[in-house]
Order: sequence, then C-alpha cells, then structure tokens
Amino acid sequence: MSQPIGQSVGQAAGQAPFGARLRAALDTRGPLCVGIDPHPELMASWGLADSVVGLDRFAMTVVDAVADRVAVVKPQSAFFERHGSAGIAVLERTMAAARARGALVLLDAKRGDIGSTVAAYASAYLAPESPLYADALTASPYLGYESLRPLLDTALRTGSGVFVLAYTSNPEGATVQRALGHDGTAVGAGILAGIAAENAGVAPLGSIGAVVGATVADVDFDLAAVNGPLLAPGVGAQGGTPAGLRSVFGAALPNVVPAVSRDLLRLGPDGAALRVAADRMTAEFGALLAE
Amino acid sequence: MSQPIGQSVGQAAGQAPFGARLRAALDTRGPLCVGIDPHPELMASWGLADSVVGLDRFAMTVVDAVADRVAVVKPQSAFFERHGSAGIAVLERTMAAARARGALVLLDAKRGDIGSTVAAYASAYLAPESPLYADALTASPYLGYESLRPLLDTALRTGSGVFVLAYTSNPEGATVQRALGHDGTAVGAGILAGIAAENAGVAPLGSIGAVVGATVADVDFDLAAVNGPLLAPGVGAQGGTPAGLRSVFGAALPNVVPAVSRDLLRLGPDGAALRVAADRMTAEFGALLAE
Repeated sequence: MSQPIGQSVGQAAGQAPFGARLRAALDTRGPLCVGIDPHPELMASWGLADSVVGLDRFAMTVVDAVADRVAVVKPQSAFFERHGSAGIAVLERTMAAARARGALVLLDAKRGDIGSTVAAYASAYLAPESPLYADALTASPYLGYESLRPLLDTALRTGSGVFVLAYTSNPEGATVQRALGHDGTAVGAGILAGIAAENAGVAPLGSIGAVVGATVADVDFDLAAVNGPLLAPGVGAQGGTPAGLRSVFGAALPNVVPAVSRDLLRLGPDGAALRVAADRMTAEFGALLAE
Repeated sequence: MSQPIGQSVGQAAGQAPFGARLRAALDTRGPLCVGIDPHPELMASWGLADSVVGLDRFAMTVVDAVADRVAVVKPQSAFFERHGSAGIAVLERTMAAARARGALVLLDAKRGDIGSTVAAYASAYLAPESPLYADALTASPYLGYESLRPLLDTALRTGSGVFVLAYTSNPEGATVQRALGHDGTAVGAGILAGIAAENAGVAPLGSIGAVVGATVADVDFDLAAVNGPLLAPGVGAQGGTPAGLRSVFGAALPNVVPAVSRDLLRLGPDGAALRVAADRMTAEFGALLAE
C-alpha cells in the first residue's frame, strides 16, 4: 500500500486511511459496490441448498467473479448469521478472499450500542488482527451519533472506515430520520453533520461515510460537505437508477458508492455473467460520475 | 410447557408465547436479568485470558452460577463476535446451556435493517431450529419501527420475543430518541406506541418488549399501556437503583425486567459469590415490585 495521505491519525497496522484507500479504489476500479446477500431465494435460484455449503459456494462465486475488479464488496452479515458459527466462518473466509483479490470489504452489519459494547464491536470488525476484520462497517445510530465514538476512533486509528446510517429509502425510515431535534435539525441531518465534522479538512476523502438511500428525496444537508463516502443502497431492485443518483447527490456524486445486490446476483451462478454485468454497471456509473 | 395463553397466533414450535413464558418466569424466579458481558477487563480480573477458551470459561461460569435461578440471562453478542466464528460457537453453547437450566435467553444484539435482511435476522435468532436461537432478541429501530416487521411477526409465530430500543440512558441517545415527528410525538414514544399496538389485548403479557433505561427521566408514554416486558438496563454500574425504578416505571413495575451486568459479574469468578449476589438482587427487586 501507499503511505498514509492527508490524515494525521496514525494507523496501527501501517495501512493508509480508509478514505484514501477507498478514493484510490474508486478512481482505479470505478465506483461500484457489489453486495454479497445470500438470500435463501437467490441461493435456490442458483441451485444451491440453504446450507453452510451452499452459503460458501454462493459467497465464493461472487468473490471469484468480481473481487478482482470492483472497488468494494459488501457482505450482508445477517445472511451469514442465519447459519450460526459455521456461517460466520464462511464470512471470515469470504472477507479474506475478497481482500486478497484487491477489493475493499464493507461489512453490512448495522451495529450500534453504547460504551464498552461499541468498543467490542470495534475490536470485532475494525481491528486488523480480528478474524472478522473488515475495511469498513455499517453502523446504526439509534443511541445517538456520539454513542458510536469507539467505532469512529478505532476506524481512524486502524485505517478503517465506518458508514453511519443517515437517510434510508424505506418509507418507514422517515418516522425516525425526519424527526426534528430541539434545534429544528432533522435526525438524519444531525448524523450527516456529525460525519462532516469528523471528516473536516481531510484529503482526499474522509474515512467516515454515510448511508444515504439512492431514492431519498430532499436531503436537508449539503452532501458534498460530508467530505466522506456516501453509500447508496437501493440501486436497481429498490428503484434507484444511475440517472436518479444525480438528483439525490448532486455535487457529491464523486463520493458516491452505489451498491447493487439482487439486480446483479440474480444473474448467477454463472461467474462470467456476473463479471460482465459488474463491468457494465461499473461503466454506467463511471460515465455518470464523469459527466 | 403449558399451552399458549391469551394469544391467537400459533407457535410453530409448540411453545407458549414469549410473553406468557416470561410472565411465568418472572413470577416464579423473580424479575432479575443477568447480563453475560465478557468484557476483556472483567475477564482479566477473573484471571482469564482474552481468548476463546477464556470466553467459554467466563460464559459457562455465569450460566452455571445463575441460569437455574434467574428468569432471564442476556448474553451481549458483541463480546462473542470479538472472537469471530469461534466466539459465536461459544455463544451457541452458552445459550443452549442457559436454556437447559431453565432460564429464558435474551440475546442482546440490537439488530435492525429492512426487508429480507430483517427476515434473515429473524431466522438467525428467532427460529427454534437455528443454532443461534434465542428466546428473545433486542432490536434497533433507526430504520423505523415497521422496518422490524419480519422480526415481530416471526417472534409471534415461534413463541419468541423482541425488545425494541425506545429510550436509553446514555446522554447522546436523546438526539435521536427525543426528536419530534410531524405529529409532535417523540421518536421513543412512537416506538412505545407501536409496541403497545402490537401487544393490545394480550394476556398475561405481550411478547414484544421495550428497552427503557433505568435512569431515563420523563418518559412521555404510559409504560403500563405497553402491556409488554420493559427491559431496564443500567441498574447498578450505570447509576440506576432499585428504588429509582419506581419513579421511572410507576404502575408498569410488574412488567419491568431489571438487567444487571458488571455489578454482578465483578464478583466472579467465584460461582458461589455470583449466586449469592443474584439471589440478593432478585430479593431486592422482588420486594420493590411487590410493594
């Protein structure tokens, strides 16, 4: 890896900050994030049993098809947890294999808690010596943005990242995310402000990201000011389109990481088909972002 | 087990609804919930290595000391996840051992997501055939109460429970939980209203619970109307006292499940000391609730 860039916090493992590593990956591989979501229905459509063996085959097929070419792969922890400790062992192998092929691994687990429990999640997922080490982790801030502090601090120390939920595309999300705090700021905007403060002045890109749905309307915060990666799930199956991203993200488009899952995965189990589709989606999003 | 009581939803595994099972456990064993939180610092104070072997020893010591006498044991998933798949295997053994000794197992994992991902968490933790089956699971509603629907429906179908975060004791929790929705209802009160609707008319106790911190002030919802279990973390180490519970919970006290963790666990590794302390705390809380 190159030397750390533009961030004064030292990295325990000697790797560059996550934001710099992600920026380099986006610039060289294009913006696509491929979800690894082993739904039972998808596994059945691939002819795989809903078993640990099927799970392993599914995950490794995706890794083999795309991890040498896309910037980010995003395993969804829930689908591995379904299979207990044996499923988690598959997750460990999946993440290691994806990293070995050059992709950054974003584990989608939406963890959150307080105090020493958040510190335990940080050591589970953002400490390079952990068997479940991921380059970045999604986090859920129902207990407040600052409750995630041990995750944020560990990420900065180890060259890892955190993507905090801000605005999601599901309709019921608004009941929490659009509620107004005492100063009149919406909850989601408050989360974005916290992330922006974390990333202020960092170049080329902050290491703390936000999750902002690809079909969210009227985001009441300047997303470019977040100065961090913006994970945009919901492209494809959930109705988001490459063109739609422009209206949501505007000037922040260069920092957007569009995540596709089912729309790609349904093309399996043929690895070549997955690879061709990933290349096509990468080109589509890349062209949009370069406009 | 006795037959299902007061709830029309059938149980796939033939066990009574979680609310009925919990009510019976609280009435016969007293209200205490003992956390199994294998903090690295606690493990060190017990003379245990921060390893899978140490984790197993810690968790099994707690189970052996208290699971034959307290109503609920609550493993904190984060501390098992720190040890990867081998740690999750310890969690599986811990939960099975606690159930075999008659305690209900509440897994504290604060899961949350949308759609098929929530359904995957439901099958991971609330489907009796899963290796990680827990009698109940904590859930985090940043994506909206209704985003948890697959967890709620699975719980009712399998005789299991869900405890949804509402109001937590940490100061930064208010930034989300006290924010006001468009109808002027605070986020936390909206969560409590959702749970109350779920549990309406169920006897002896609904199966959907709420997490309400033991030191939360000014809860703007009638907690007795929730008609479900109220998990109250923060007793002891976080400043909550048995007497303080009365001012927070009032008429809902009979449905309160006070959770103790560090204040009990620091007395280990002597199993007899843990047992004596659990009996003492059970008596203290039981006397309060009987007043």
